Amino acid sequence: MIKQLKENIANHIELSASDLEQFCNLFTQRGIKKKEFLLREGEVCKFEAFVVKGLLRVYHIGANGLDKVLYFAVEDWWVTDIDSFTNQKPSQLFIEALEDSELLLISKKDKELAYKSIPAVEKLFRIMTQKTHVALQRRMIDNLSKTADHRYADFIEKYPMLAQRLTNLQIAAYLGISHEFVSKIRKKIALGK
Amino acid sequence: MIKQLKENIANHIELSASDLEQFCNLFTQRGIKKKEFLLREGEVCKFEAFVVKGLLRVYHIGANGLDKVLYFAVEDWWVTDIDSFTNQKPSQLFIEALEDSELLLISKKDKELAYKSIPAVEKLFRIMTQKTHVALQRRMIDNLSKTADHRYADFIEKYPMLAQRLTNLQIAAYLGISHEFVSKIRKKIALGK
Repeated sequence: MIKQLKENIANHIELSASDLEQFCNLFTQRGIKKKEFLLREGEVCKFEAFVVKGLLRVYHIGANGLDKVLYFAVEDWWVTDIDSFTNQKPSQLFIEALEDSELLLISKKDKELAYKSIPAVEKLFRIMTQKTHVALQRRMIDNLSKTADHRYADFIEKYPMLAQRLTNLQIAAYLGISHEFVSKIRKKIALGK
Repeated sequence: MIKQLKENIANHIELSASDLEQFCNLFTQRGIKKKEFLLREGEVCKFEAFVVKGLLRVYHIGANGLDKVLYFAVEDWWVTDIDSFTNQKPSQLFIEALEDSELLLISKKDKELAYKSIPAVEKLFRIMTQKTHVALQRRMIDNLSKTADHRYADFIEKYPMLAQRLTNLQIAAYLGISHEFVSKIRKKIALGK
């Protein structure tokens, strides 16, 4: 499991073998079953997690009772509620396993320790957070400039394997479009139209 | 001008006087008149800017021809197109001065130099990017869980001075609600209802 985490980190920055070892030792393993929650609204998020195996969805339940998916996390993704974790305040989010999942978790205390004792970890999270910021900005812009058809097509082109592991309802809750609409687009594509 | 930048940095992290000096020396001053553009769609963003004085809006023109404000930047805020700046690709955004503004700009080359020669700068931007990420997540959640009335009230409570410097149209383009609706809410508030 640690090997996969090391490879993920190496995709972002070069870290010496000893720094990498020291940092990865701060993580603890956790298995979570499908439909179990890693975090519920109202709880303080005590972890940042790396997904070794499985699939999770991070969502918020709006005033209208509908849930909106902020993002999905599959193998090699990181998952947390950044606001709750950073500011140690109750979360407004749910993090639920959509498949049986294996995670590596780091606590806030250990992450702070890493920042102090392994300076390169600052760079790692600066780069990772920057990438997330870029992704969020692109999503905001896509929501404004692309039709629902286009956004659905982009989603399956960008994440073909992920799309197969999700229901229409889950994809709809991520793209902010109706369930029926995703279903209609899928049929159109299946018919090769 | 540099004094204000130094104070802003000190709000995020502690930096030695020499590191602070070295970092701030990488910035260059630039004045920009009201209605001028700091960046236009299609250009590569060559700067990250600190606002010493003035007001700018960062926006995208959607497929429907309507503009959507990603954010406003006033005194003590930072402004850039993170995607275009980081990845040196053409921007999808416009950055326009809404008032005569004074800025301090750093180039990508000098920012990379700072990361190499002043390790604490990694921490500075890790923390700043993290705060932006938290703010973006809060905005996504607010858009789902709060009514337009509520979001408008939040905006003027959080940024009372900024709200006075903006038109209804500009606030509407930020909150994603109609111009008429903002105008109606403003009247309601003015009448103390």
